[in-house]
Amino acid sequence: MPELRRDPVTGGWVIFSPERKVRPQFFGPGGDIVLTAEDCPFCDGNEAMTPPEVYALRQNHGHNIPGWSLRVVPNKYPALRVEGDLDRQPEGFYDKMNGVGAHEVIIESPEHAKGLELLPLSAVADVLLTFKRRILDLKQDFRLKYIQIFKNQGSRAGATIPHPHSQVIAMPVVPLVVVDELNRAQVHFQEKERCLYCDIIQHEIGVGKRVLFENSDFVVAAPYASSFPFSLNLYPLAHGERYEGVDDSLFAAMAEALQHSLQRLAEVLESPAYNLVLHTAPFDRDAARYFHWYLEIIPIIGGTGGFELGTASYINSVPPEEAVKILKGNIG
Amino acid sequence: MPELRRDPVTGGWVIFSPERKVRPQFFGPGGDIVLTAEDCPFCDGNEAMTPPEVYALRQNHGHNIPGWSLRVVPNKYPALRVEGDLDRQPEGFYDKMNGVGAHEVIIESPEHAKGLELLPLSAVADVLLTFKRRILDLKQDFRLKYIQIFKNQGSRAGATIPHPHSQVIAMPVVPLVVVDELNRAQVHFQEKERCLYCDIIQHEIGVGKRVLFENSDFVVAAPYASSFPFSLNLYPLAHGERYEGVDDSLFAAMAEALQHSLQRLAEVLESPAYNLVLHTAPFDRDAARYFHWYLEIIPIIGGTGGFELGTASYINSVPPEEAVKILKGNIG
Repeated sequence: MPELRRDPVTGGWVIFSPERKVRPQFFGPGGDIVLTAEDCPFCDGNEAMTPPEVYALRQNHGHNIPGWSLRVVPNKYPALRVEGDLDRQPEGFYDKMNGVGAHEVIIESPEHAKGLELLPLSAVADVLLTFKRRILDLKQDFRLKYIQIFKNQGSRAGATIPHPHSQVIAMPVVPLVVVDELNRAQVHFQEKERCLYCDIIQHEIGVGKRVLFENSDFVVAAPYASSFPFSLNLYPLAHGERYEGVDDSLFAAMAEALQHSLQRLAEVLESPAYNLVLHTAPFDRDAARYFHWYLEIIPIIGGTGGFELGTASYINSVPPEEAVKILKGNIG
Repeated sequence: MPELRRDPVTGGWVIFSPERKVRPQFFGPGGDIVLTAEDCPFCDGNEAMTPPEVYALRQNHGHNIPGWSLRVVPNKYPALRVEGDLDRQPEGFYDKMNGVGAHEVIIESPEHAKGLELLPLSAVADVLLTFKRRILDLKQDFRLKYIQIFKNQGSRAGATIPHPHSQVIAMPVVPLVVVDELNRAQVHFQEKERCLYCDIIQHEIGVGKRVLFENSDFVVAAPYASSFPFSLNLYPLAHGERYEGVDDSLFAAMAEALQHSLQRLAEVLESPAYNLVLHTAPFDRDAARYFHWYLEIIPIIGGTGGFELGTASYINSVPPEEAVKILKGNIG
């Protein structure tokens, strides 16, 4: 059983999951893919290689057989487990609880080597809509307080399986960094009676030079103080604190904004490894007025080291204005 | 000129340093070393390839010539620069200041391929004593508020040059994560009239199972809620909030504790890439009673991805008790 332990120095919870040690690694040491489509647990026809699916988009009424366009399965090596009680308890000087939660994999398409930038727009919209569906399902479990949806594309971004997929980790605690962000947004609202993120979006659209893409409902901009070169935030124009509150009619426009951004990154940075990170409100806090969900896109092109580990600060060699200029193709 | 920009969402400062983009990369894509000793700017005889030294231990009275056993030089591609005023100012909705600070490299020995685990103990003590000397020198600059000393060993730990070296970044702001840690330690002290870290050290020595090494003045233990597999903290037994306050007589014992730990990691994990991270009190805050400096040793054996970027939480597959057992050679 995984375990959560509280760090007495930071106050944050760390997940201990000894089972994940035995995961196979489908990338070689240089980051090259060593997994063929035949051996890939996420490929069409290999449904028996994963735990049974919990959700799928398919053209038939089967389960765990071919015919699907998107599949959600429990992670075979889960960081957290659905079974059991939290059993919060002290351990001498310290605090721990059972690692109760959920860890799912969203297999984005049957295609082994087609990333989100290459799929039909409707398939990208399906992936983004599935994020909402999984949150709505998992939040019914009263033990869970926060869901982190993310995507690791490429070994440098933390992926162990090359077949494109996203992941869902539902946790029994709210990460401190999320609490801190909410608290700061709340202070901004208390002072100004305005949403911090709405302010940022309005400012960025006005200034323009950090905006990569805009459509009727979404805007993609490089943050003024982005920690990583070429990182982008995808914001909904309409205020809303929860991803699962987005109307189904908006996912086509969201997919367009995401795919355009990923296509520009793939072209300019030669298909970099990247992470997607969803920021959305926890279940146990009413942040409706002051929080605003967004999706972070982080290409992995540099390395981090001891400075970043010690300070949680970053050294970025590409100002966001320049990154957007390059991504728009205005300079080379 | 580098620039610091404040992230309005986190409140933290990000360093923008466009010059660092052009750094040569002396590791190949697979992490292999592609730099020979002849071409290495940190090797004996190549002193002209670095900016002039600001400190050295040498057997002659020369400068920037061979004969040294340790050399400190400004980073050729500094994240922050010594020249100029901070010039704090708003930029529209945002905040920025000039990237004033210092960025130095401590070349730990003339040996191209000998890490700290292989050097004579006296050379390791010299490196650790040099950390203190550089802090004492740099803290005279009233513009600087915090110094991060760290070491990236190996490309996976963020090194671009394989020749063993540590780095010093002196900053005009205190990183938020440092402020948070100090605040938490202060609350612990206010409640208990005891240092949080002294409590942790006493508890760990009593429990024993997470302690790797102990001598008259230092203890090395795997933290109860360590974020990374096999990571270790080196604590001074005597309370003290500042690394630069350590008496010169203690560096031999500190070197023994550090070298023993690095040797065990090198043997058990096959010379992993690793980071060293110093945690010490900022200059502008009297944390004498409640903070306690320590050195963190983090071998880089797993990868991180979108989950860690979103939550600042970690999934660790090796509980610290097991890590210490393995490092002691009792299993594995």
